[in-house]
This record gives sequence, C-alpha cells and structure tokens, in this order.
Amino acid sequence: MQQLLRVQNFCVSMDGFGAGEHQSLERPFGHADPGDLVSWAGATASWPGRTDAGGTRGLDDYFTRDFTHNIGAEIMGRNKFGPQRGPWQDHEWRGWWGDEPPFHTPVFVMTHHTRPSFTLSDTTFHFVDGEPADVLEQAREAARGKDVRLGGGATTIREFLDADLVDTMHVAVSQVRLGSGVRLWKSPDELLDRFHQEVVPSPSGVTHHLFWRR
Amino acid sequence: MQQLLRVQNFCVSMDGFGAGEHQSLERPFGHADPGDLVSWAGATASWPGRTDAGGTRGLDDYFTRDFTHNIGAEIMGRNKFGPQRGPWQDHEWRGWWGDEPPFHTPVFVMTHHTRPSFTLSDTTFHFVDGEPADVLEQAREAARGKDVRLGGGATTIREFLDADLVDTMHVAVSQVRLGSGVRLWKSPDELLDRFHQEVVPSPSGVTHHLFWRR
Repeated sequence: MQQLLRVQNFCVSMDGFGAGEHQSLERPFGHADPGDLVSWAGATASWPGRTDAGGTRGLDDYFTRDFTHNIGAEIMGRNKFGPQRGPWQDHEWRGWWGDEPPFHTPVFVMTHHTRPSFTLSDTTFHFVDGEPADVLEQAREAARGKDVRLGGGATTIREFLDADLVDTMHVAVSQVRLGSGVRLWKSPDELLDRFHQEVVPSPSGVTHHLFWRR
Repeated sequence: MQQLLRVQNFCVSMDGFGAGEHQSLERPFGHADPGDLVSWAGATASWPGRTDAGGTRGLDDYFTRDFTHNIGAEIMGRNKFGPQRGPWQDHEWRGWWGDEPPFHTPVFVMTHHTRPSFTLSDTTFHFVDGEPADVLEQAREAARGKDVRLGGGATTIREFLDADLVDTMHVAVSQVRLGSGVRLWKSPDELLDRFHQEVVPSPSGVTHHLFWRR
C-alpha cells in the first residue's frame, strides 16, 4: 500500500493566504480573524474540537471526518506549533494545542532549533531539522504504513510542493480577502501542470479545492 | 458517543430507482445496467473492489473512502445478499459477495427465512427475522459502539425511513432513467420535513444528496 503525503482541510483566503501578518501568542493567525477561515469546519459534527452532539453532517463534514482517516503521522512547520522564533527561550510552553492535541499521532515539527521530544496525551511532538524529503522519510517510518498529513502552514506546504512530495491536497477557500500574509498560492492554477483538480462549492460558502497527482 | 444508522453510497437513477425489475443470479440489478448506477464509485481510488493503484482522488473518493469509517456492522435486505426468494433451497451458495466480502464487519441480512450464520474472511453474515427496530438493536450491539451502515436495497431503506430510524443518508443520483424497478423515492423532497439536505453535483456527473436529521 502506497503511503501518501496528504494536505487536509488547509484553509486559505480568496487571495491565497493561509494566515495574516504579525503572528503572536495571542493571535496565531496574525491580523487575520481565524473564524473567517475555519468557521466552515467548526460548524461540522466531526470537527475535532467539538464538545457537544450537534453540528452539520453535509458536504463539509466529509472533509472534517476524513482528518484522521488512515493518518499515521503529521508534519508541521514551527509556526503551527507556536509563535516563538530563533532559539527556544521557553521549554515550558508546549505549543498552541493544549493538553489534548487533536493529532493523536507522532507530529514532526520542522525547525532549525531542535529540542527534546515530549508527549501530550496520545500525541508526541518531535522537533526535526532537515530537508523536506528527510523529514518525510522520518514521518513515513513513524506512520507505520499509514499516510502522512502535511499540516501546514502555507510556507511549509510550499516547501513540500516545490520538492514535489505532495500526493493529495484539500484546500478550503473562504470568501474573505486578507490582502497580505503567509501565501499558499497566487492562483490554484499554478498547480495544474502536476495535479488533477476539482473545485467543489459547498452550501456553507467555502469552496473546496481537491488536488491529486497526474 | 451516539451510534448512528447511516446510508452510504446508495446509488439510484434520476427517477429514483435503486435497481431494475427481474433481479436474477446473473443480473443482481435486474434490467438495469449496474455500471450506469455505480461507475462513479468504481472510478475512485478508494473503491473497495479496486485491485490496482490508480483511481481518482477528487470529491467522489471522499464518499467511497468513508465507506468503512467508524462502521461496526451492516444491515441489508435479503435481495442484496442474493436472488433467492422464499425458503432457502441452496445453503451452499453463500451470496453475491465472494470469498472476501467488502464489509469486514458483522452483516445482518433481513429475511423471514432464517438460516445459520456463517463467516467469509472477516465478514460474518447473520440471518434475522424481525422489525427494523429489533434488527437495528442487534446490529448496534454487534457494532460495539460504532455506527451501523444500512446497506440497502431500496425497499429495506424505505422500511427504516418509514420507522424513522435513519440518522444520515448519502444517495448518489446518476444521470440515467430506469422507468421501473425498486423505488427509493419519487422525489428526495419527500424527506425534507425530517432531514436537512445538501445537493452536491460532482464533476463525474453523479449528484450526491446528503441528508441528516433535523
């Protein structure tokens, strides 16, 4: 069985930004309002953060409930883990994801500043310095035959796209413009030489872009 | 965690039939060409019957790869198991599903003519006579906390809809007319008093109808 590298539920603005500028501890998405980008997912029954029995079970729910399906590891950029830059000043603060991170697998955080691995609930964070292909090899081994999720942010996804390592990608485009920030693409058409694409408008207002290798 | 009763990937014609007339051993869908109804699913990477590494990974693939997700048992009508009617004449023939059935869970076949359970690979078929609510109770217990798939055919789904036992339903409507056969609905609008609905056209030509309880 082929082990895929999959981008899932990555949210961008109409103008192609995955986050705004000036990320900080208080504002993980910088000047962007995260609700504008991710509220479609939060409304679904299968949203990992949901604590009640409600939520929609239409098209958008297929995307949120696919989040864990056959995923054995995640790769993320350092800015998805936290706002610190450069050498780690504070090992006590253990990321934006709380005591029960939604990953439930090994997570490989890409950084030039490594630090010891640690485990929160059933998620273990590893901090790795290396080229995308090297990190992917480590993640594949940790995934034990399952697929690897490429969790973002936009800069990290770009690095793996540029290295031609991404197999499938689901990007949810919201009806908001950010004007500036961390860019995934100028246009999804950039990918059409290498990927099949389907564009699926959801009744919720978000548009799902699905890519898989040609 | 709520245990849902879910209809998944049930295929009907534009005029609402899940199969044609005159079902037989050679023609499980009667006068209907099954390719007209199910080819959208067969084209996807996650189709359970796929034996090569190809297939599409767009919208339709989300539906086929959800087939096993959190499913712990299936309920099906006798006509989905085989073409025999009345008392069993032939216990040797063990259904249309081959030595490796795609269910991988207990399967409850509804029939007034019970027979001993048997196992093929990791699928065990049980033959049960009872009202929909009773059969669902057995299937829920066998599913050990997971959801139960209501596999069809159309007559069986109607029985569970009429008993108000269905929680979610995905029906794929193909662009073919059958004129007659086993009917699921005259119009999906019949369900709107009890269910939310989303209608999602797929680039493949099939239209996905998604229902969940109000």
